[in-house]
Amino acid sequence: MSIHDLEEILHPKSIAVVGASGGGRGGQFVQPLLEFGYKGKIYPVNPKYSEILGMKAYPTIRDIPEPVDFVISVVPSREVLKMIEDAAQKGVKGIHLFTARFSETGRPQAAQLEHEILTLAKRMGIRLIGPNCMGVYYPAEGISFQDEFPKKSGPVGLASQSGNVAGEIVNNAARRGVFFSKAISYGNAIDLNESDYLEYFAQDKETKIILMYIEGVKDGQRFFNVLRQTTPLKPVIIIKGGKGQAGARATSSHTASLAGSMQIWQAMVAQAGAVSVETPDELIDVAASFRFLPPIKGKRVGVAGGAGGASVIAADECEKAGLEVIPLPPEFREEMKSRGISIWDWLSNPADLSIRENDDFAVGTVLEMMAKNPDFDLLIAIMGHMHRRFMGADLTIDKYLNEQYCLNRCRMKPLLAVVPDASLGIEEWDSWEWKMNCELRTRLIEEEIPFYTSITTAANAGRKMIDYYQRHS
Amino acid sequence: MSIHDLEEILHPKSIAVVGASGGGRGGQFVQPLLEFGYKGKIYPVNPKYSEILGMKAYPTIRDIPEPVDFVISVVPSREVLKMIEDAAQKGVKGIHLFTARFSETGRPQAAQLEHEILTLAKRMGIRLIGPNCMGVYYPAEGISFQDEFPKKSGPVGLASQSGNVAGEIVNNAARRGVFFSKAISYGNAIDLNESDYLEYFAQDKETKIILMYIEGVKDGQRFFNVLRQTTPLKPVIIIKGGKGQAGARATSSHTASLAGSMQIWQAMVAQAGAVSVETPDELIDVAASFRFLPPIKGKRVGVAGGAGGASVIAADECEKAGLEVIPLPPEFREEMKSRGISIWDWLSNPADLSIRENDDFAVGTVLEMMAKNPDFDLLIAIMGHMHRRFMGADLTIDKYLNEQYCLNRCRMKPLLAVVPDASLGIEEWDSWEWKMNCELRTRLIEEEIPFYTSITTAANAGRKMIDYYQRHS
Repeated sequence: MSIHDLEEILHPKSIAVVGASGGGRGGQFVQPLLEFGYKGKIYPVNPKYSEILGMKAYPTIRDIPEPVDFVISVVPSREVLKMIEDAAQKGVKGIHLFTARFSETGRPQAAQLEHEILTLAKRMGIRLIGPNCMGVYYPAEGISFQDEFPKKSGPVGLASQSGNVAGEIVNNAARRGVFFSKAISYGNAIDLNESDYLEYFAQDKETKIILMYIEGVKDGQRFFNVLRQTTPLKPVIIIKGGKGQAGARATSSHTASLAGSMQIWQAMVAQAGAVSVETPDELIDVAASFRFLPPIKGKRVGVAGGAGGASVIAADECEKAGLEVIPLPPEFREEMKSRGISIWDWLSNPADLSIRENDDFAVGTVLEMMAKNPDFDLLIAIMGHMHRRFMGADLTIDKYLNEQYCLNRCRMKPLLAVVPDASLGIEEWDSWEWKMNCELRTRLIEEEIPFYTSITTAANAGRKMIDYYQRHS
Repeated sequence: MSIHDLEEILHPKSIAVVGASGGGRGGQFVQPLLEFGYKGKIYPVNPKYSEILGMKAYPTIRDIPEPVDFVISVVPSREVLKMIEDAAQKGVKGIHLFTARFSETGRPQAAQLEHEILTLAKRMGIRLIGPNCMGVYYPAEGISFQDEFPKKSGPVGLASQSGNVAGEIVNNAARRGVFFSKAISYGNAIDLNESDYLEYFAQDKETKIILMYIEGVKDGQRFFNVLRQTTPLKPVIIIKGGKGQAGARATSSHTASLAGSMQIWQAMVAQAGAVSVETPDELIDVAASFRFLPPIKGKRVGVAGGAGGASVIAADECEKAGLEVIPLPPEFREEMKSRGISIWDWLSNPADLSIRENDDFAVGTVLEMMAKNPDFDLLIAIMGHMHRRFMGADLTIDKYLNEQYCLNRCRMKPLLAVVPDASLGIEEWDSWEWKMNCELRTRLIEEEIPFYTSITTAANAGRKMIDYYQRHS
């Protein structure tokens, strides 16, 4: 029962870091446990040290006086078999093999050793995460594989075959206000594999949204079944790495994965009702939508805040993403007219506010009317173009969001914000305008409004969420 | 002869700003002329003022004692006919009508007035830029419609039907090291239109690369002919605004343009050998490639610098863009072996440097070997993931580029760099890591290496450039 196994593995009362040291990779796995305040016992294991980071170090696992639940292995590959035998003696339930250089090298001897490791671990009743992976990030439990990861937990679970991709997703998602229950980097997946992690997250009470980065599937039929059962309960958003020839070569040399046919994959994911995305950036866009937005019932979008040609491009990009950029309804125009808005006959959707006369109404006026009108299913607010000259140096983010965008009155509808990035150089680093955008992002996270770097990515994320709810409603 | 006309219009000995004032829109067009050091005479015109920004103001154009070459009109639409008559008396050659609220409003009377303005200007022999546009940015001549635009000139010409899109392109391109000969925002294009501006840029010695944002084409046959004649001489990169139904409504209310059939447009642009792009961001990506890279002869790409799953995704995104991510050639592996690189049999393309043993060679070692190997047509270097802990606080951009990426030895091949953006919040604003990325971007501009925010956009820009050169070689 892998579900039970993982639940136990992820709540160890003690962790031994075998191959630990004060610095480098060995330190990398001890330091975060201290940094994250892991409550259980930490046992550094390394015959070369008597003390590591202020803790007593043991020559081997067998020398630890108490039971050990979980092992993080940083030893070279040739020492793993011996380490597993030692671990078995101490009653270890699970081992995370950071240790690498196995089948991913393409070298027959290394693949043979990997096979022997799996056989031994099975015989000893020990479950393996990895090898060739970064392992577990579980902030509520005080476990992490990076010092810099957020201490804060959230409702998102991530299983990633790549530690690098996991790190990119965890760190970049945090800057969008998206935090994690657990993230597991699982590498070559010789024992516990993608189906186990998915099954675990499907039942995990701390996880409401599931993200995956998969290079190869070990058992397609099982994965399809688990996925199909999971998606009605929780959205599952998946990147498939290794789409073409070069990608397949890359998955082979990275995690020894067989990338498989992309056509079969796409059909399987669609049939199982999961959300397919291409890159970590897109994964985070879609995750932020599910994290912060209520279910979106339809495709009819209202857009406001872009000026001139930006509104034209907003219309094009929304339509390209499959959203319906509907014309302003007649009663909407009537209301504008009755409110004395002089361009009631001219304003369109997307609402181009640059055609206002004397700036006599705010972008939020239009957004609020769209929010109240039943013809709109979702709203996209284009934000972040703050110029000191037009807006005054006394502009605050409060004024910007409440007076210009009427945030609290337009968020009764699913609301997506666009805040552009800018590839700043060192001279712009300290500019007022871009610093205001940073403040704006922080504030939007506090307000639980998801933001995107462009209308293109906002529209795409909205559409993928709509498709999910149309499928599973 | 519109070419001659534009050349004359763009080099005025004097400019009258009619409807000028000290602040607001009126000031907006006087202030930049001072700021940019326009060498000719500036005549503010407004009966309500005797002086504007330290200069004598005249009640009407007729009151100006000397000849006037060019007029920027900021007066309300109802005053334009009178203003044109006055301008004709002073020998004005061209008028930029910032003045708006014409056919774009959809109101018959406004469209009628626009028609009368065109008729009068034609009779008077005055050429019109606009109406409903921001006009001319020509830094070498000291003309600009934004204070903040770069003073620095470059080899790129831009004709944009939207002033907002023009502003976004000019400002964002500058942060990528791309500067402009001239940028013209031309709005409703009732007189001078897209074909005139294209024809002008085709012959302009200061312009080597042409960018366009077009909402509607006035004369399709003429535009096709001019475009077909221009693309063998200079790359022309075009965004078409108004692709679907909502986009067409938006172009109508923005510049009164008929967006036309997207199928016909795509076929026409392809047949004429121009480069089609979708958004300002993509336009800048492609422009940066043409600006800094030599012609790329083929699609075979070498990628290095991404770790683990990032290399897998790099392979996928390059193949999706139509690049060929070739396997490492046999002689390449032999050279690695002879250099004592232990993973000579394992390393792949994209080169995942995280599998190095003891970091015994640099990413630049691989890039340099790819640069020297004739099997590679272009290189993509993934940069910018700088962590103080791994790289040391004494890391400088010099060391990073020269020692890690061996920049000077790998740039004999077309080299594209990836430097990610990060949607920073206010807490990350001052972080070492992101500030280093800003320094890196500034330095890459100095080195004339184009950079992109993701592997996806780098691969796409490279591919579009390859297609252009394959078509026009």
